[in-house]
Amino acid sequence: MKTIKDSVHDHIRIDGVARDLLDTPELQRLRNIRQLGTVSLVYPSANHTRFEHSLGVYHLACEALEYLGIDGRQAERVHAAALLHDVGHGPFSHNLESLTHRRTGRYHDDVHELLADGAVGDVLRDHDIEPAAVADLVAGEGRFGQLVSGELDVDRMDYLVRDAHHTGVPYGTIDHGRLIRELTFVDGELVLDEGNVQAAESLLVARALMNPTVYSHSVARISKAMLRRGAERLLESPHNEVDAARLQRMDDHDLIAALRSCPATDAFSRRLDQRDLFKRAVWAEIDDVPGGIIEADHESIRAFEREIADEAGVEPECVILDVPSRPSMTESTSRVIVNGDVRRLGEQSPLVDALRAAQYSQWRLGVYSPAALREQVGRAAVDVLGLDIDGALVSEVRDGLDATLDQFVD
Amino acid sequence: MKTIKDSVHDHIRIDGVARDLLDTPELQRLRNIRQLGTVSLVYPSANHTRFEHSLGVYHLACEALEYLGIDGRQAERVHAAALLHDVGHGPFSHNLESLTHRRTGRYHDDVHELLADGAVGDVLRDHDIEPAAVADLVAGEGRFGQLVSGELDVDRMDYLVRDAHHTGVPYGTIDHGRLIRELTFVDGELVLDEGNVQAAESLLVARALMNPTVYSHSVARISKAMLRRGAERLLESPHNEVDAARLQRMDDHDLIAALRSCPATDAFSRRLDQRDLFKRAVWAEIDDVPGGIIEADHESIRAFEREIADEAGVEPECVILDVPSRPSMTESTSRVIVNGDVRRLGEQSPLVDALRAAQYSQWRLGVYSPAALREQVGRAAVDVLGLDIDGALVSEVRDGLDATLDQFVD
Amino acid sequence: MKTIKDSVHDHIRIDGVARDLLDTPELQRLRNIRQLGTVSLVYPSANHTRFEHSLGVYHLACEALEYLGIDGRQAERVHAAALLHDVGHGPFSHNLESLTHRRTGRYHDDVHELLADGAVGDVLRDHDIEPAAVADLVAGEGRFGQLVSGELDVDRMDYLVRDAHHTGVPYGTIDHGRLIRELTFVDGELVLDEGNVQAAESLLVARALMNPTVYSHSVARISKAMLRRGAERLLESPHNEVDAARLQRMDDHDLIAALRSCPATDAFSRRLDQRDLFKRAVWAEIDDVPGGIIEADHESIRAFEREIADEAGVEPECVILDVPSRPSMTESTSRVIVNGDVRRLGEQSPLVDALRAAQYSQWRLGVYSPAALREQVGRAAVDVLGLDIDGALVSEVRDGLDATLDQFVD
Amino acid sequence: MKTIKDSVHDHIRIDGVARDLLDTPELQRLRNIRQLGTVSLVYPSANHTRFEHSLGVYHLACEALEYLGIDGRQAERVHAAALLHDVGHGPFSHNLESLTHRRTGRYHDDVHELLADGAVGDVLRDHDIEPAAVADLVAGEGRFGQLVSGELDVDRMDYLVRDAHHTGVPYGTIDHGRLIRELTFVDGELVLDEGNVQAAESLLVARALMNPTVYSHSVARISKAMLRRGAERLLESPHNEVDAARLQRMDDHDLIAALRSCPATDAFSRRLDQRDLFKRAVWAEIDDVPGGIIEADHESIRAFEREIADEAGVEPECVILDVPSRPSMTESTSRVIVNGDVRRLGEQSPLVDALRAAQYSQWRLGVYSPAALREQVGRAAVDVLGLDIDGALVSEVRDGLDATLDQFVD
Repeated sequence: MKTIKDSVHDHIRIDGVARDLLDTPELQRLRNIRQLGTVSLVYPSANHTRFEHSLGVYHLACEALEYLGIDGRQAERVHAAALLHDVGHGPFSHNLESLTHRRTGRYHDDVHELLADGAVGDVLRDHDIEPAAVADLVAGEGRFGQLVSGELDVDRMDYLVRDAHHTGVPYGTIDHGRLIRELTFVDGELVLDEGNVQAAESLLVARALMNPTVYSHSVARISKAMLRRGAERLLESPHNEVDAARLQRMDDHDLIAALRSCPATDAFSRRLDQRDLFKRAVWAEIDDVPGGIIEADHESIRAFEREIADEAGVEPECVILDVPSRPSMTESTSRVIVNGDVRRLGEQSPLVDALRAAQYSQWRLGVYSPAALREQVGRAAVDVLGLDIDGALVSEVRDGLDATLDQFVD
Repeated sequence: MKTIKDSVHDHIRIDGVARDLLDTPELQRLRNIRQLGTVSLVYPSANHTRFEHSLGVYHLACEALEYLGIDGRQAERVHAAALLHDVGHGPFSHNLESLTHRRTGRYHDDVHELLADGAVGDVLRDHDIEPAAVADLVAGEGRFGQLVSGELDVDRMDYLVRDAHHTGVPYGTIDHGRLIRELTFVDGELVLDEGNVQAAESLLVARALMNPTVYSHSVARISKAMLRRGAERLLESPHNEVDAARLQRMDDHDLIAALRSCPATDAFSRRLDQRDLFKRAVWAEIDDVPGGIIEADHESIRAFEREIADEAGVEPECVILDVPSRPSMTESTSRVIVNGDVRRLGEQSPLVDALRAAQYSQWRLGVYSPAALREQVGRAAVDVLGLDIDGALVSEVRDGLDATLDQFVD
Repeated sequence: MKTIKDSVHDHIRIDGVARDLLDTPELQRLRNIRQLGTVSLVYPSANHTRFEHSLGVYHLACEALEYLGIDGRQAERVHAAALLHDVGHGPFSHNLESLTHRRTGRYHDDVHELLADGAVGDVLRDHDIEPAAVADLVAGEGRFGQLVSGELDVDRMDYLVRDAHHTGVPYGTIDHGRLIRELTFVDGELVLDEGNVQAAESLLVARALMNPTVYSHSVARISKAMLRRGAERLLESPHNEVDAARLQRMDDHDLIAALRSCPATDAFSRRLDQRDLFKRAVWAEIDDVPGGIIEADHESIRAFEREIADEAGVEPECVILDVPSRPSMTESTSRVIVNGDVRRLGEQSPLVDALRAAQYSQWRLGVYSPAALREQVGRAAVDVLGLDIDGALVSEVRDGLDATLDQFVD
Repeated sequence: MKTIKDSVHDHIRIDGVARDLLDTPELQRLRNIRQLGTVSLVYPSANHTRFEHSLGVYHLACEALEYLGIDGRQAERVHAAALLHDVGHGPFSHNLESLTHRRTGRYHDDVHELLADGAVGDVLRDHDIEPAAVADLVAGEGRFGQLVSGELDVDRMDYLVRDAHHTGVPYGTIDHGRLIRELTFVDGELVLDEGNVQAAESLLVARALMNPTVYSHSVARISKAMLRRGAERLLESPHNEVDAARLQRMDDHDLIAALRSCPATDAFSRRLDQRDLFKRAVWAEIDDVPGGIIEADHESIRAFEREIADEAGVEPECVILDVPSRPSMTESTSRVIVNGDVRRLGEQSPLVDALRAAQYSQWRLGVYSPAALREQVGRAAVDVLGLDIDGALVSEVRDGLDATLDQFVD
C-alpha cells in the first residue's frame, strides 16, 4: 500500500489495481495537464493538475464504496474507473475538447482504446479486470457508473472542492463527507438518502456560484478561445505535422512548445505567454442573440468571423466569435429520497429552476479582438450577427464590465 | 494599539475608542454568552462567543470604512457601534429574546441606556462620542447604520463565516473580502458596485443553507424551546427573585446556575445538562397548519399547550408547542448596481424568490414531548391544532426524520 | 451508528460502547468545561471544551487501532478509555488540579470510582467491559494504555491540533495522520516505525512552541493563579458548603456562579469577569531563584505570600506567588525505530536537549498584585524570597515585557 | 489598483510600479516555472509557481513597510524588488542553478541586466526608479535589502507557508502576521522586537522540518539530479543549439520540450515523464564520507561517476553521484531584541545549535542508478569513493529506507 499526501484530502491510501495503475505512463501524463486550463490566467494559484484530481476522485470513490458495503472485484473496477476517468483528456483539459472531438469524430472510442491498450490494459488484465467494463463505468454506464460519472458522482465532489481550494474562491465548499455517506441505491439508481435535499441543493449551488466566478470567467473564456484558435491554426499549418489525434495525446508542455515554435501560431502564443489578451468587443445576453447564431456549427462561426473582420476592415485573425452552448444543469436530475419516495431534485427544489434561470441570465456571446480594434470590431459584429443592441450600448456596457473585472483579474 | 489573535480573521488590530471599550464590563460580559446558544448541543464545536464575534464585526467594519475612505470621528462612531452592537444580548444570545422582550416590552431603549450608562457611556464621552449616535447606528439608522445593521452589514458577514468555521459546516463560506471591497454609497444608500450580483447572491445562499443545517436544526430548536420554557418558569417561580430585566442582563453562567438551583426548573435543567431532550411529537409543514395558529400570540400558544396536554392526559410541562414566525429574507432588499442602475437584489436575481420558496417549504411547526409520550401527545396536538395530517402519518414521517437526524446529531 | 461534525476532524463516526457512553451525564458534563480554562482570556476564540476534545481523542484512537489491526473487545476497551479519559477533570480543566488533588489526596481513585459507578459503569458492564480495565488504560497502564496516555498518545495529538485551531496560533500543527499511521508495537512497547524521527521531533517541537505562546502565556498564568486563589478562598469560606470533592465534580458554570455569590470571593470573581487582572510584580528566571523556593510546598508558599504582603504593607489577598514546577518533557522518552533498533527519542535527536534547555530558559517565577501595588510588592518579594535581582531591574524588565505583551493579549 | 485572489493570502492589492510590472513578459514568464521543481513528483499537489510566490512576497513586503512606516519612493523600490526578486530564475527554479551558474559564471550580473533591460527596465524608469537600486535590494544590500533577502526576509515567510499549503505538509506554518508586525530597525539592522525569540525560533524550526520532508526528500533529490543530468547532456549534445545562457531564460515548458526532442536526452526525459526514476544505490551519512569528496568540484564528481560506472561495468549514464554541500543555517544570524539588547538568535537560543546538529545528521551523499543495477553500482561506489560502510550494510539500510519511503511517495 502507498500513501500519498494531497493538499485537499490529506492522506490518500492507494492499493490493489489502483496502486499498479499509478505507474502507467497514461496516468503519469496527467501530471502535466492543468485541471483548469487557462483559468490560471485569472486565478494565479489555480495550477493544480488532472493527476491530483484523479487521485482525489479515486479517494472519494473508495469512501463511497466503503459506505455502500461494496468490495472485491466490483470495487476494484470502480477504483480503476475513478482513477482513470480523465486519461482521455487532451492538453489544457476541457479547453480544446470541442476542437479535437470535432476533428477526430470520436471520444468514447478513444477511451476504450486507451484503457485496452498499452500499460493500462496490461495492468487491468493482470488484475482480471476487463478494460471494456472500466470504460463503461467511465462513461457512466450501469449501476456503479453513476458514481463515476453521473449527477451525484465523486468527480464533481472532488473538482468543486479542489478548484475552490486552489483558486481561493470560497464557493465550491460542499460537504462531500456528508454527501458520500448518504449515497444509497434504490432500484439500481444512486440516490441521496432521506433528509438530504439540502445537501443535494448545495452541490447545485456550488456549481452555480463557481461557474461565472471561475469556470466561465470572461478572461478565462477569452484566453481559452485564443488557445483553441491557436491550436486550430496549428492543425491547419503546412509547417506542422500535428493532427487532431496527436494533439489529443499531447500534454500542456507539448502544446505550448508546438504553439511557440510554429510560425503560424507564435503570435497567439506570445500573447498567451505574456497575458496580452484580446478584449471583449461584444458581450451580449442570450435574449439579444438570434437563435440561429446560438445553434450555429463550427464552420458557420468561422464564416461569421471572416465576415465581421471584413466589415470591420481588420485581419481575420483579429476576430474571435465565442458562442457557448445553451446552459444545462445535470445536477437537476439527481435523485433524493423525500418522505420515503425517490424524487428528482428538479421536482422537489425550487432552487433548480431559479439556478437554471440564473444560468440563462449569465449566458453571454462574446466577440473578442485586440484592444485597439474593439470599437470597429464591436460595431461590425452587432451588424453582421444581427444582435439586438446598438453599438453605443455595446461599448458602454463593455467598459463598465471591464472596469469591474479589472479589479478582480490579474 | 492592541493586537488580538482571532481564529477567523487572524490578527485584529484594535485602537482608539474601541481599545478603551474593550475593557468595559459590558463588553467583557460577552465572553460568557455563546454565539449560537443551544446549537452546541447539535454541533459540539460551536462554543464561540458574542465577544469574538463582536471583535470580528469591528474588524470588518474597519476594513469597510478604509475602502470607503471614511476616517476621523465618523469612523470612530462606527467602530464603537460595531464593537458594541451585541451588548444588549441576554444569555444564550437570541434564544430568549422573544421572552425577555415580551416581558420588558423594550429592547431598543435598553441599548440606548446600556450605551449611555456605566463604563461604556464614560468611554464614549471621553472620546467625544455621543452614546445616542452610537445607539442609532446599532439600530441601523442613517447612512452608516446600514453597515452595522442592514442587508449588507458586516455583522452578517462575520457570523456566517464564524458560525461555519466553528460548527464545521462548510456552507457559510462567503467571500467577505470581496463583499467589503465592493461596498459603495449611492445617494446615501449602501450598495454593491457593478459586477457583484453573484457576490450578493452568495450572501443569500449562505444564509439559506446555514438556516436549516445550523440555525433551525430541529434539535437546536427543541433545546432552545426547552431553555425558553425553563427561563419562563424561572420568572414565574415564587422561589426566585429574577425578573425579565435582570434575566436580560445575565450571562450564560448565571442563567444555567439559576435554572439548576430553582426547584421549579431543575428538571428542565437536568434534561438540558444531560442532553436528554424532548422529541418531536409533530413536525408539520406550513400548508398543513391553520393560519390562526401561525399568527397566535404567546398566551394563545400556552393555552394550546395546556389543551393538548389535557387531551393527551399528560402533565402540562410535557408539551411544548413551537411555532416559528413566517420566514423573512432581509437580504432580498440588498442593493446592487447593474449596468449603472441601483437595483434591489430581489428584482434582479431569480434566486431570491426560489430561496424564499425554499424557506417556506422548510418551515415546520413542532410539538415536543418526552420520548415516551410522543404518540399520545402527537395525536392530541393534531386534533387540538386542527392540523391537516392524520396521526398515523405524523408518527411515520417523524420516525423517518429522526432516523435521518440521528446520523447527524450528537 | 452516529456521526458527529467536528471542526477539527470533520465527521466523527461513533459506534458501539462509545455510542452509549455519549449519553451519560459524566460525558455530557464535559460540554461545560473549557479545554484551556483561562487561556480564553488571552485568546478569545479558545472556548473549545473537553467534550469535543474527548470525541477527537476517541476518533484518533479508532484510526490508530484500525492501522494496528486491533478490533473486538480489546478495541472497545480502548475506545471507551479514549472517550472517557477526561471525565475526572474538574472545572477549568487543569487549572485547579493542584488544589483539588492536594485537598482530596486522590485523583486516580476518583477515576476508578467514576468509571465504576453511575451511568458510565452501567454502560461499560452492559458491553461486558470491566470498568477497572478502562481506568487502567486511562492511567496509561499496559500495552494499549500507551496509546491513551503515554509519550505518543492520541490525547496529545488531538490537543495540539485542536488548541492551535481554536487559539489561531499556528504552532501546534503536527501531521497526526502520519503519526497515527506509523505507530507499531515492538516487544509490547508503542513505537514509531522506521523513518519517523522527524515526525517524533515535530510532536516535541509543537509542544515546545505552544507552551510559552499558549499554555504558559503570562496572562493565562496570572488569571489561572487568581482563579485558583478564588477557589481556595471559596473552600475556606465559612459561608460556603463546597468542599474539595464537590468542587472537583463541578463544571465551569457551577464554579463561576459559586465564586460570584460567595462574599469571600466576589472581588476575585469581579476581576476575572471584567478581565481586570493582577499584573506581574516580579518575573524571575530559574537561575535567580533559590532552590528552596522552587521546591516549596503549598503551605510554605502561602506563608511567603503573607510575609511579602506584610513587608510591602498591603493586604494579604493582594499578593499571589506563582511557582511552576521544574520543566519536564515527556515526549523525550518516546521511542522510534532507527536502522532497525528501537531508540528513545532523547538519545537520537539533538533537539530534545535543546528544547529542554529552552524550557529552562523560559521558566519564570511570578509574583502578581494589583497594578497600583506592583512597585512595593515587587521590592518586598525580591527581599523576602532572596531573589538574585535588584528591585530596579525587576520593574524595568517587567515594563518592557508588559509593553510587548500588550500587543498580543486582549 | 488591481486585486488578485491568492490561495494563501486571499486578496492581494497591487498598485503603483508593481501594477505596471505585472504585465511585463519577465514577470509573466514566472507563471510557467514551478516553485518547487521536481518536488511535485513527491507531493503531487505542489504545482504552485514562482509567479504566485512573487505576488505573495510583494504582499508581505507591503505589510511590513506599512508597519515600519515607510512609504513613497523608498517603498516603491522595495515593492519592485519584492515582486521581481525571482525573475532571474531558470526553469525548475533552483534545480538547475548550479549548472547554469557554473556555465555562465554569473548570476548577480544577470539580475542587473534583466532589471535594466527590456520591459522591466522601462517600467522602473517610468516610475523614476533606478533599476540598479532594485537589483541591489534583490541582492540583499542596504537597509531595506534585508527585508527582501536576509535572515528575516519576506521571501522566506511566503515560501514556508506557501510550500506547506501546496504540499499538504503542516510543518511550514509560521505566524507570518506576527513576524511582520514585530520587525523593526535598530542601527540600520532589521531585527525582531522584544518578546519574539520564539517567533524567530519558529522560522528556524519550520525550515528545519520542511527541509528533509520536502526540499531534500530523497525522491525530490533523485529526480532533480536526473533533471540536472539531462540538462547537462542537452548542453553538450551536438544536435542542440541551447547554451547555458539560453537555458537560464527558458521556462519549464521549453526545457521539457527540449529534453523530449533531443536524442541525447529523451531517455532521461521519458524516465522523468513516467516517474520511472533511478533508485538509491548508496545513501551515506556525512561521517562516512571522506572530506575530499564533500568538497569535490563538478569535474571531479563527473570523473568519480565514470570511475564507478567503469568498476561496476555499467554505462556511464547509469550512475549519478549527488553530493549536497555542507548544511548552512542562515536564520541563525537573525537578530532579536532581548531585554533591550540586540542579540543574534544563535547566541540566544539553544535550538540553533541543535537544529544545526540535526541538519548534519540528516546530510546524505547519494549514488543513484536504475533499480536493476543498484547492487553492483552500490558496491562499486563504496569502493571508489572510499566510504566507511561495507557493501552489505549499504543495501540493507537502503532497502529499509525505501520500504519506509514507499509509504510516503507516490
